[in-house]
Amino acid sequence: MIIECPFTKKHPSILHRDDEYFMSMAYNQAIEAWKHDEIPVGAIAVFGDEIIASAHNSIITLNDPTAHAEMQVITQAAKIIGDWRLNDVTIYVTKEPCPMCSGAMIMSRVGVVVFGAMDSKMGLLGGCFRLQDLKTINHYPVIKSGILEKDCALLMRTFFAMKREGQRYLTQ
Amino acid sequence: MIIECPFTKKHPSILHRDDEYFMSMAYNQAIEAWKHDEIPVGAIAVFGDEIIASAHNSIITLNDPTAHAEMQVITQAAKIIGDWRLNDVTIYVTKEPCPMCSGAMIMSRVGVVVFGAMDSKMGLLGGCFRLQDLKTINHYPVIKSGILEKDCALLMRTFFAMKREGQRYLTQ
Repeated sequence: MIIECPFTKKHPSILHRDDEYFMSMAYNQAIEAWKHDEIPVGAIAVFGDEIIASAHNSIITLNDPTAHAEMQVITQAAKIIGDWRLNDVTIYVTKEPCPMCSGAMIMSRVGVVVFGAMDSKMGLLGGCFRLQDLKTINHYPVIKSGILEKDCALLMRTFFAMKREGQRYLTQ
Repeated sequence: MIIECPFTKKHPSILHRDDEYFMSMAYNQAIEAWKHDEIPVGAIAVFGDEIIASAHNSIITLNDPTAHAEMQVITQAAKIIGDWRLNDVTIYVTKEPCPMCSGAMIMSRVGVVVFGAMDSKMGLLGGCFRLQDLKTINHYPVIKSGILEKDCALLMRTFFAMKREGQRYLTQ
C-alpha cells in the first residue's frame, strides 16, 4: 500500500546556489523515493556548481540492496566527469550515509560529503561511528552535516510512522 | 601497459564443494581481473551449494568506483534469488572487503562472508576495524577468513610489484 506523501518539493531560487539550495534538490529526490514507496532518501552530486547527478533510494524498485541514493549518484557522477576519482565532487544526501555508502564516499575519493539528518544507529560519518577517524584509510572526504536537518529527518520519521499506522489499520 | 598474469586458474574437483573449492572460483575471477588490468580481486555468491553470481573488480573497465567484485555479486545475487535480502547467501571474496563492501555485506543482509587475504589498511571486517563490533547496526553476517589466504595475497602482491617494476622500466 503506497501512502501519499504529505510533503511537497522545495523550490529555492537558483540564484543562490548554497548548501541549502543543493540539499533542497536532494530533498526533492527523497520525496520522489517516497512516491515510489521507498524509504525517502535522496542525493545529488555537484561539480563546479552544477548538479551532474541525482538519484533516490531504489532498493525495492530495482530489487538491489546496493541501490541507495548515494551509490547511484557516485556511479552517475563518475560517468559524467569521465573519472572514477571524485575528488572535485560534492555529494549532498538527506541522511547520514550508511556503512556501505560511507565507505563508498572514501573509496570513490569524494571531495565533500554534506548530509542532512544524522543517523545514530547506522551512520558511519559521525552518528554511530566515524570512519574518518581510521588512520589507515586512503582518503578523507570533508564532512558537513545539519543542512535542512529537520526537514530531512521529519520526512523519514513521518514515512515510518505512516507505514506503521497503515500496517495497524490493515491488521485490525 | 597490461602485464601478463604469471598465475593460472585453479581447477578443483566439483565433487568437494567446500570453502576451498568456492574460494578457488573467486580466485579465478581475480585472475580475470588481472587480465583486464584491474587489481586482482574476485568474488562469487553461493546459494544452496550453487554459484549464482561471480564477478571481478572492474573499476577502470567500467569507470565506476563502486564496481568492486563484491558489489557486483551482491547485485547479481539479489536478481537471481528475487530478494534484496541475502540472508541465505554466502559470498566468497579473495581479499577482506573494503569499507564500502564491508558495509554492503551488512546492508544486503549477507548470511556468511568468507574472505581470503586480510587487509590491515582498508579491511573493515577485522583487518583495520571490525564493523561487526558496532552495537547498533541491523545485521551481523558470519565472518570466516584465511581460505586460500596465501594464494590470494600473493596474486595481489605480485600484481602491484610487477606494476611498479613496469613503471620503473618505462621511466628509465
